[in-house]
Amino acid sequence: MDLNADLGEGFGAWAAGDDDSLLELVTSANVACGFHAGDPTIMRALCVDAAARRVAIGAHVAYRDLAGFGRRFVDYGAPELADIVLYQVAALDGIARSAGTAVRYVKPHGALYHTALHDRVQAGAVVAAIRSYSRNMAVLCQPDTELSRCAEAAGLRVVAEAFVDRAYLPSGGLVPRREPGADLIDPDEVAERAVRMAVDGEVVAVDGTRVPLKPESLCVHGDTPGAVAIADAVRTSLTAAGVRLEPFSQP
Amino acid sequence: MDLNADLGEGFGAWAAGDDDSLLELVTSANVACGFHAGDPTIMRALCVDAAARRVAIGAHVAYRDLAGFGRRFVDYGAPELADIVLYQVAALDGIARSAGTAVRYVKPHGALYHTALHDRVQAGAVVAAIRSYSRNMAVLCQPDTELSRCAEAAGLRVVAEAFVDRAYLPSGGLVPRREPGADLIDPDEVAERAVRMAVDGEVVAVDGTRVPLKPESLCVHGDTPGAVAIADAVRTSLTAAGVRLEPFSQP
Amino acid sequence: MDLNADLGEGFGAWAAGDDDSLLELVTSANVACGFHAGDPTIMRALCVDAAARRVAIGAHVAYRDLAGFGRRFVDYGAPELADIVLYQVAALDGIARSAGTAVRYVKPHGALYHTALHDRVQAGAVVAAIRSYSRNMAVLCQPDTELSRCAEAAGLRVVAEAFVDRAYLPSGGLVPRREPGADLIDPDEVAERAVRMAVDGEVVAVDGTRVPLKPESLCVHGDTPGAVAIADAVRTSLTAAGVRLEPFSQP
Amino acid sequence: MDLNADLGEGFGAWAAGDDDSLLELVTSANVACGFHAGDPTIMRALCVDAAARRVAIGAHVAYRDLAGFGRRFVDYGAPELADIVLYQVAALDGIARSAGTAVRYVKPHGALYHTALHDRVQAGAVVAAIRSYSRNMAVLCQPDTELSRCAEAAGLRVVAEAFVDRAYLPSGGLVPRREPGADLIDPDEVAERAVRMAVDGEVVAVDGTRVPLKPESLCVHGDTPGAVAIADAVRTSLTAAGVRLEPFSQP
Repeated sequence: MDLNADLGEGFGAWAAGDDDSLLELVTSANVACGFHAGDPTIMRALCVDAAARRVAIGAHVAYRDLAGFGRRFVDYGAPELADIVLYQVAALDGIARSAGTAVRYVKPHGALYHTALHDRVQAGAVVAAIRSYSRNMAVLCQPDTELSRCAEAAGLRVVAEAFVDRAYLPSGGLVPRREPGADLIDPDEVAERAVRMAVDGEVVAVDGTRVPLKPESLCVHGDTPGAVAIADAVRTSLTAAGVRLEPFSQP
Repeated sequence: MDLNADLGEGFGAWAAGDDDSLLELVTSANVACGFHAGDPTIMRALCVDAAARRVAIGAHVAYRDLAGFGRRFVDYGAPELADIVLYQVAALDGIARSAGTAVRYVKPHGALYHTALHDRVQAGAVVAAIRSYSRNMAVLCQPDTELSRCAEAAGLRVVAEAFVDRAYLPSGGLVPRREPGADLIDPDEVAERAVRMAVDGEVVAVDGTRVPLKPESLCVHGDTPGAVAIADAVRTSLTAAGVRLEPFSQP
Repeated sequence: MDLNADLGEGFGAWAAGDDDSLLELVTSANVACGFHAGDPTIMRALCVDAAARRVAIGAHVAYRDLAGFGRRFVDYGAPELADIVLYQVAALDGIARSAGTAVRYVKPHGALYHTALHDRVQAGAVVAAIRSYSRNMAVLCQPDTELSRCAEAAGLRVVAEAFVDRAYLPSGGLVPRREPGADLIDPDEVAERAVRMAVDGEVVAVDGTRVPLKPESLCVHGDTPGAVAIADAVRTSLTAAGVRLEPFSQP
Repeated sequence: MDLNADLGEGFGAWAAGDDDSLLELVTSANVACGFHAGDPTIMRALCVDAAARRVAIGAHVAYRDLAGFGRRFVDYGAPELADIVLYQVAALDGIARSAGTAVRYVKPHGALYHTALHDRVQAGAVVAAIRSYSRNMAVLCQPDTELSRCAEAAGLRVVAEAFVDRAYLPSGGLVPRREPGADLIDPDEVAERAVRMAVDGEVVAVDGTRVPLKPESLCVHGDTPGAVAIADAVRTSLTAAGVRLEPFSQP
């Protein structure tokens, strides 16, 4: 099982999250590429550290929106969206290569992630950009979505992820983050859910429904105060349950 | 002889220069990478067009200063400067590769260019970034400068350039652009200078001194109103004088 | 009758439109405030010139989107949208005051304009920002829209505008700019429409329907190649028809 | 005696410093205006809170350099520098006015502060911008500097500040921040220095020299981990020593 988190979400003088600690716990790092967060210095340091710790690097691509942290929908047309995704993937991959590693996958960030799950145009633009860059990059996202279908149709590997610290709807979707209870913050509860996802292939939705899941990667959030404690508990519990943690791709 | 010009210097809705016409005339295109000008859409279109016309692509790297077009000195420390250069080179190279070509050289832009000619710290940072990315990229700049010496010491190929439409000092330096007469705008005069540079290996400075030059590339400006007419005249005159125009690197 | 146009739409080294010529022709200038275009230097120069020519100044407020020129919808929540509108109005008004004039009205730009016509949340945010700044600023927009109703409900003056160089739908709305024929480019045709709007209070829609209009201001575009010729023709024809051109507010 | 600190230095999703706690302790708030830090939402919230707590608001103006937090020298020419200072002052003042208060003073930030102390051109540009906006705004800076002299010559009030948590050179200048010992972090030591500055009019430099000072305002840093503890200790000690804390200008 792979464990992924968003890292490198600072910018210039501003920090965000405890990248050092999380790099010791996750197996895949979704690295911000400078459009919603991240800057060249943060990106390079993270690539060097990830390479040293054998953590796989993914491009966490986003709308161009530093002021909104990529959390606001922006109505990009397909060509421009593909172009900014390509730019971000290329920048991070070049930095990763100069650090002796490479970008192995792409995961859209924030509003682009949510839009690409449902919107065929934006999903298609993301996939077209990745494929124009490399046929060997995976797409990390929720399965059975526009994004996963577009990626599969383009011949890209899709890696299904589940969110260990988010409440689920019976449909298999996530409870929107604005609603109360959307984020789970108790490390023990989250760790237990992680084991259930990994071992039993299911999650209990907010109404008690058991939703089947087959994740190849579990996502823990990197930007919450208790992020490290949660990732630590998840890692410990999964290991204790006999789940081997390793990147889904070459680190 | 190579003929280089700055292209792709628009941003978003703003255009700058007649890229289409210049791509028909030059053999190497210095492409803005998004920090002083250029955006992913412009960069991709230019890479596609350059590949189709067998024009070599260089990364025109700059300070992060869209508002100042990279023309203002910014007091970057070496690590941050190396990081932003690496980011820009990587982004353009990835886009170029997705278009079936690649970045062959780097030329600093504006204030970074002028600073790196004289300042060993910034020159060293630019060179370190390029070398960490690839040992096969050339550096395009004026010879006998800090930048050229740093690049040579690092084992990078240095391609010497001369400016066909700029007035020279007897020292071999350029007349600062703020001074009257710094820019030459008559196509015939510029074309004649280009031939003298290419065939006779010299330029006549503002005081009449004959300054020896051995350029491998001649730079024409892309952002002036008469840029296309000048490049056209230069190309025609050089060809008439028996100078073969071709990129100094693989296009 | 007032004649308004978008001015100051350059940024840094990039120019857009012939502000000097248009300032001689219009009576109200919609000045970009730095979020989609415009920078402090452009804004100050324009305020000085507008004051000298007794042209009224309006704040052309927009989403924060330099790369997209404010033409893409961005899903701002109301508080953040109100805050960026307030910031833009304040910045331009302070600059205008230092030039001896003041901002007299606000006109949203691009995607924000189109969204605020229909979306009560964004319209409300724009109006709330203006009103928190001054009760004496007008809102320039199409009438019978969410924006005009919000502004009226808040006690702000609404100035109805019509577009002399845009094709109309029988509903009174504009033909979307992506459709063929949306933009009218023949100066004589546009000038004739302007007179019909100003004198007869109507416009002929694309299907031949005569749509009644009561504009207090006519908008000519500032960013098209023939903008000056069109504005000149409109001004000349209106004057010839006995329509007096003057700002709807104190210049 | 006035107590000033830099506040509102976050941007978008990124926070910096504990503005709420510091607003309870200082009498003047240097508010970032969006060019090195700060965004319209942060600025508005801070103006509302400062007004409620009767804290005076100053514009903390800076180079346009979000990525560098305004800490890098940028070689602005005087006109552009004056224009960006005017823009920032105007934006913050308009927001402050909509919150029922106003900007009372200007303090340059970071590299602009340090440059304006010594460089007459940049000092002059800052002063020209302020004066074009209002003759009633004070300039907060170290005395006997190019900036203070320019401001005085222009008829602006200069408020002399001293830094309670910075080591001093015998010349009265500050030990550069890169050198060890430049920042004092022990609250008791800092509080004692503050009292000595306020009551005895002197500070002990790094070599033991007693340097006379006559500050009207004492600056505490807002962006260090112990900022609140230091400000609290300073306030308590000054009050115990009979020094009355109040803004140097109308709050």
